[in-house]
Parts: sequence; C-alpha cells; structure tokens
Amino acid sequence: MSNGDIFAGAVTGAFLCYLTYFAQFRANAHGTGATEGTAGEPVATLGVFSTIPEIRNPVANLVTEIIATVALVLPILAFGLTEGLGESGTLVLIVSLLVVGIGLSLGGPTGYAINPARDLGPRLVHTFLPIPNKGTSDWGYAWIPVAGPLIGGALAGVVYNAAF
Amino acid sequence: MSNGDIFAGAVTGAFLCYLTYFAQFRANAHGTGATEGTAGEPVATLGVFSTIPEIRNPVANLVTEIIATVALVLPILAFGLTEGLGESGTLVLIVSLLVVGIGLSLGGPTGYAINPARDLGPRLVHTFLPIPNKGTSDWGYAWIPVAGPLIGGALAGVVYNAAF
Amino acid sequence: MSNGDIFAGAVTGAFLCYLTYFAQFRANAHGTGATEGTAGEPVATLGVFSTIPEIRNPVANLVTEIIATVALVLPILAFGLTEGLGESGTLVLIVSLLVVGIGLSLGGPTGYAINPARDLGPRLVHTFLPIPNKGTSDWGYAWIPVAGPLIGGALAGVVYNAAF
Amino acid sequence: MSNGDIFAGAVTGAFLCYLTYFAQFRANAHGTGATEGTAGEPVATLGVFSTIPEIRNPVANLVTEIIATVALVLPILAFGLTEGLGESGTLVLIVSLLVVGIGLSLGGPTGYAINPARDLGPRLVHTFLPIPNKGTSDWGYAWIPVAGPLIGGALAGVVYNAAF
Repeated sequence: MSNGDIFAGAVTGAFLCYLTYFAQFRANAHGTGATEGTAGEPVATLGVFSTIPEIRNPVANLVTEIIATVALVLPILAFGLTEGLGESGTLVLIVSLLVVGIGLSLGGPTGYAINPARDLGPRLVHTFLPIPNKGTSDWGYAWIPVAGPLIGGALAGVVYNAAF
Repeated sequence: MSNGDIFAGAVTGAFLCYLTYFAQFRANAHGTGATEGTAGEPVATLGVFSTIPEIRNPVANLVTEIIATVALVLPILAFGLTEGLGESGTLVLIVSLLVVGIGLSLGGPTGYAINPARDLGPRLVHTFLPIPNKGTSDWGYAWIPVAGPLIGGALAGVVYNAAF
Repeated sequence: MSNGDIFAGAVTGAFLCYLTYFAQFRANAHGTGATEGTAGEPVATLGVFSTIPEIRNPVANLVTEIIATVALVLPILAFGLTEGLGESGTLVLIVSLLVVGIGLSLGGPTGYAINPARDLGPRLVHTFLPIPNKGTSDWGYAWIPVAGPLIGGALAGVVYNAAF
Repeated sequence: MSNGDIFAGAVTGAFLCYLTYFAQFRANAHGTGATEGTAGEPVATLGVFSTIPEIRNPVANLVTEIIATVALVLPILAFGLTEGLGESGTLVLIVSLLVVGIGLSLGGPTGYAINPARDLGPRLVHTFLPIPNKGTSDWGYAWIPVAGPLIGGALAGVVYNAAF
C-alpha cells in the first residue's frame, strides 16, 4: 500500500466513525447525550478523531512519536528475518499485539499516531464535518504526528541496516 | 452453517445463559439478588439477551449496524485471498480478535448485533421465558439488528467483488 | 495426564500460591496488610484457593458448572476434527482464550471450576495451611465443583458422539 | 543473547522511557503535571523504572521472585519438547501471554522482575538521571530482583532435567 492509500483509508475510517456515532454527535448539540461532560455541557470532539498531547511540548512530543514509531517499525523489519513468518497469519496477530503494547507503554504522552496518515486524515475530517460543538481542530499540533512518524520510520531503517 | 443453524444456536445459547444464571434471575424477583439496581429495585433483563441502542434513532442505529457488519464481513472475505490461512487455526484467533475490536470501537451505539441471528433468537427467548421482573422485550427495535446485518453483509460482498 | 496428575498439580499450585503471597497472608493476621477488608478487619481467604458461589443454590450451581464444562470440553473435542491443529502451538492459544471467554461469560455464578481437580485440591490446601484468619473452608459446597465438571465432561462426550 | 545484551537493552529501554515521558517527568518538578499525587505533591518515580515490593520482607520477596521465575523458565524449556514450535511465530505469542499471565497471578507481591537484568538496569538509570523529585532509588532492595531470577532460572533447569 502507498502512503496515499493509507491516507485515503484514514479519511474514510474517520468519516465512517462519524456515521457510526451520528446520534451521539447530534446529542452533543443539546448537552443531552452520551458525549456530554460532567456538568451537562457539550464536550470537544477532537479526541475521537485525532491525537492530543497530554502536556503540550513540541520537542518532547516529537521525540515521543519518534521513539514510539521506531518501537513499531524496527520489530516489523526484524520479523522479516524469520523465514516463513511473513506468509503466516501469525504475523497479523503479533503486529496487532505490538501496536496494543506500544499504546499501553508509550502512548500516554501523545496518543501515539506512529503513522503519518493516522492523525492528519481524521483531523481534516474533523475540520470539515458539521459536528455541533466540535471545538478546535488544533492545527498547531498537526505537524508533530506527521513529522514524528516520518523521522521515526527513517530512523528505524537506519538502525536496522546498521544492525543486520 | 446455514442461517437456520446459527439461529438455532443463538436460541439455544440464550436458553443455556438463562439456566447458567438461574439463581441470579430468580433473586431479581425479590430485589435481593445480584442483578438488582442501585436502589434495591429489580432491573430489566433484556440487555442480558438482546442488543439495546444507547440513543434510539432508527436510521442512525441501522447505519451503525450496517457499518459494523461490513467491518466484520469484508476482512473475512479478504482473508480468503491469503492462501492456506483458512485451514490454519490462526484464522480462528484473528476473527475472534476482529469481533472484539469491532465491539470496542463500533459497538457503543447499538451493542453490535452484526449477525441477523444474534439478536432475534435471544429476544424470542426473553419473550417466552418466565423471568421475574424481566421488563419489556422491546420488539419495536427488533428489526434493526436483523436488517442492518443483512444489508451490511450484502454490501460487503458488493465492495469485495468491486475491489478484488 | 491422569486426573491424579492434575490433582497433584492443583495442590502444588495452591501451595506455591501460598508461598508467593506469604507476606500478604501474614499481614492479614494483624489487619495491617494488603488483604485486609474495608474496615481494617482481616478477610476470609478461601477465594484465593477455591471457588465460591455468588448465590448459594445447589441445583442451580451444579447446572452452571455442568454447562460451563460442556462449553469447554465440547469445543476441545471438536478441535480434534481439524487435521493438524492438535500438533500446532495455535491450539494452546485457542484453548487459553476459550477458558478466558468461559470465565467472562459463564463464570459469574460459581467461579467456574470446570475441572474436578481445580477446586478440591486448593480447598484441601486451604484446610491444612496455617493461614491466620483464614475463615471457613466451606466443605459443604465442595461436592458441586467436583460433580459438575464430571457430569459436564461426560455430557460433552455424549453430545460429541451424537453429533459427529 | 547474552545476559550483557539483555542488561544493555534494559538500560537503553529505561532511558528511552525517560525521553518518551520527558514532559511528564519535568511537570513533576512543579507539582503541576500528570504525575503529581492526590494532594498536588510530586510523586516518587522509581516505580516507572524498577520493581518495588508491596510488603518489604526479604525472604518472602525472594521466594516470590524465585517461584515466578520458575513459572516463566520451566514452560519455556518444556516448549522445546514440541517439535517445530520453536521456529514458528506462535511461540512468540505464547511466551508473551505467559509473561502477562505471570504478572496477573504472581506479580502482585514484588512487581515480578523474573529476569536479572529487568530491575538492575532501569534502577541504575533512575539513579543517574536528573529527574526532579525522583525520590529514593531504593538500593537496599536491589539484590532481590537479581538473586531471585538467577536462583529461579537455575532451579527451573534442575526441575526440567529431573522431569524430562
């Protein structure tokens, strides 16, 4: 798959997510629904679509995304060393659990995009969809979950070539 | 397996669930047992058997069930493209985790029937079983978790044939 | 493995569990440790070793154990129909997840022994170990998690032979 | 992999963890961040790096680490008896779930190092890194999560050779 295919998939997925939770998003308009905050107020909905850093610190957030991406890409490259693993269904399971593990261990500070298309596509959808009380689309942060995975992916390739 | 077999399985499973939790259902009659609500009152028991939408909106609920069913059936069709996967036990694991993932991500609005027999059979069992304080069987909603999966399954086939 | 081997394993496991949590069990003597109850009082420790029914109802508890055991043994018998599955490591994963699934869905009423040795061995260990404030070993219930799995296992065999 | 490689990996991992959560660690300096305690006070950060016993009891803690290590190493040795399992990706999944299972069942009293490098490397990193309000590195406990896994690993080898 090309990066464009993945981007198209992320946009499509974000739109289908909007349709899936359509009644919940609409309920947010009146502060009567499942997505309302503690005081009955509507809540910002960006977190349903894009990643949001826990503490806003561009350098630290970028480093977090780089490290988490290396933690994803380097093992996947290394799996290629095991003959026959790539053709088996087991690899699907291992990579799925790897992504879950990265989320649990390294995902806290930034919400782990670890893929340049993961964050940008859904953020675009959030910007253009007519969701009531949707709040900001936070475009000031948008470059980090794109640049971080791009740098992390390249770095993983460098480490892999140096090590094997 | 035919749809009739799956329906019979869903009915049998719902009845065995009733037997398994027999003492809990009976305790609900007196407001003394494990299934009582916060104020010591008995609780409606339909949620043990059938799906219940979080926000009642026929069109939105139907769309949710269609999307979630496509998210189940389309990958299963695509798994058939990987030679040898169908015969391995790994496919069982992958499909199980796929269902869990659909439940976590798309299951919130409707409780994800994603199979025409999943909801109808257990709802019938709920209607006929002599469970004390069982509340309504909510037949007005029953067509959605049947029609949604039927439409979604057909749609997944159309998408698959167009794409591969 | 014979039933005697499994029983010996359950006894050994319960004793190793006691050693692993030795400091926690001892802290329970003074109401100062990790296992104390909400009011700082020591708590009964049987639940660490044996199963305890949520609602005490011999017939219903027995039926629950029978159904849960059939839900374990019948699929395992059926897995034997898939050639090559028994020799692969994948079967280990599938059976592990099957046990987890039975616990989540059918385990609530009785704590799911679903094996005649699972409950009896650890209950014996609880009876003889000098655990402070250990409470009752509840021998009146002990026959159910033995008889239920024995009946359920036999029933699964009958169903399997009738169906395949 | 040699023990030295694993130790270097544990040190590297602990340092990357520090970089990943850099903004969170810095926020702890001012009692303003995500890692602050309930009363807005900074919290000790050792638990992010090393294991900490729930109840401080050297003999009991050592026994816990020995038992948990045997529970890891003995099955791994036994997996070698199943022909072909070692070359398959399935073994990766089984061992991962084994570690998760040991953590859930035996991990409570000591935090389960079950590997001599797991605790020592990250504790060294905690000692030398300039983390604000990091609290003690608790070197008095450091020998237990090294000695326990070494004894447990040897014991598992003895049991394996005696049994197979």
